[in-house]
Amino acid sequence: MTYCAAIRLKDGMIFASDTRTNAGVDHISTFRKLYQYGIEGERFMVLQTAGNLATSQAVFTKLQNAINQRHEHNLHTVLTLFDAAQMVGECMREITTQAQNIAGDSNSGTFTSSFMLGGQIKGQPPELYMIYPEGNCIRATQDTPFFQLGESKYGKPILDRSVQYQTEVRHALQALLLSFDSTIRSNLSVGMPIDLVVYHNDSLTLPTGRRIDEEDEYFNHIRQQWSEGLRQTLKELPDSPEDYWQ
Amino acid sequence: MTYCAAIRLKDGMIFASDTRTNAGVDHISTFRKLYQYGIEGERFMVLQTAGNLATSQAVFTKLQNAINQRHEHNLHTVLTLFDAAQMVGECMREITTQAQNIAGDSNSGTFTSSFMLGGQIKGQPPELYMIYPEGNCIRATQDTPFFQLGESKYGKPILDRSVQYQTEVRHALQALLLSFDSTIRSNLSVGMPIDLVVYHNDSLTLPTGRRIDEEDEYFNHIRQQWSEGLRQTLKELPDSPEDYWQ
Repeated sequence: MTYCAAIRLKDGMIFASDTRTNAGVDHISTFRKLYQYGIEGERFMVLQTAGNLATSQAVFTKLQNAINQRHEHNLHTVLTLFDAAQMVGECMREITTQAQNIAGDSNSGTFTSSFMLGGQIKGQPPELYMIYPEGNCIRATQDTPFFQLGESKYGKPILDRSVQYQTEVRHALQALLLSFDSTIRSNLSVGMPIDLVVYHNDSLTLPTGRRIDEEDEYFNHIRQQWSEGLRQTLKELPDSPEDYWQ
Repeated sequence: MTYCAAIRLKDGMIFASDTRTNAGVDHISTFRKLYQYGIEGERFMVLQTAGNLATSQAVFTKLQNAINQRHEHNLHTVLTLFDAAQMVGECMREITTQAQNIAGDSNSGTFTSSFMLGGQIKGQPPELYMIYPEGNCIRATQDTPFFQLGESKYGKPILDRSVQYQTEVRHALQALLLSFDSTIRSNLSVGMPIDLVVYHNDSLTLPTGRRIDEEDEYFNHIRQQWSEGLRQTLKELPDSPEDYWQ
């Protein structure tokens, strides 16, 4: 399985993906599920995925090849983020349909993937899209500033509680890392390292990104402090329901 | 959907179930999914369910009828909790198979339910069972002191973090209520009121139980204090990953 999350805030965007893939519990591997595209000063994009790894890798490869081979339509030439999301959706549909046809089962869900695409093109606002296995997509809004893919439920409460469109980037980043911590603690199919990209709106620079592993000092510091804070908060809760439940 | 959780601790057991059922988002109702059985001073049992409501209600009804009509084998006559769990499993299989046969689809998952059964019979240790749709069951141990049914993922991290076999009943109760709070905030298909039963081991009394609604003062107090504590903990986390991520 997989856990990916992406947040679009007033001041920036944050993208994070785990790297664990599994075909059964005895076949676990580490694969990157987050890729970055862009042209310094002109455009910046991050593409994340969950689902069938063969489909996802084929999509990443085709999109990258189109850039390398300077196809007329590629992620570096599309005019809008929406066009980019459409391009990802079409590419995915093509690959999924091909795999379904070869398998002789046009309705098989085995070969499907989902994607999230976020970024900014010069002169346009930053945008974040969720691209469904059917190839269509929805856009994040101020009301709904984050999307998740894969094993999303364990890590949703902390994001629901603490991330709004106005939230500062550094605070949303903390909430996002804690969302990964909760997921990794509760579900074996999601694992470290985590690929992370933080983008500051209108900078149009390509962030270096970061791979967070078990040794990461910041991640370990905040997950420890978070655990400690939760323990302390629990301890301070009123002890006796009997005082209330007469 | 449904959210049920049950915890077996060194000193007691806690059972909680939400009451929302839905067949589509425009068909939402309130149904009890937790029932209590027992004989004061002799045995105490709680049965909880998630899944097909018709199957679940039929199981509850049959088990209750067997008690009322003084069948030879009923929940008030079985010798062990394990026998009780087997009885629930067999009753459920019978009802599910009947519904599948009438529908003409012996593999249909539409009619399946799951159950949790916990309690104590005089002279025996307290036990907690998870009963699968297939009719077989597993028992909670010191290593795995709690079970969940239904929409379990949102509320699992808080239990994973704070409930062990040695945990005091009052602290586990708080964690359980917060687990419900997280689930209800993040998933519309789980809703108040919550049916709650707290049992103190070896008391062999039948607890009155409690229905917690939106107005419940204790629940609101701890969910507010929890939110406040989380906010405060988040605020105190080290702000700048830059200090760590050179």
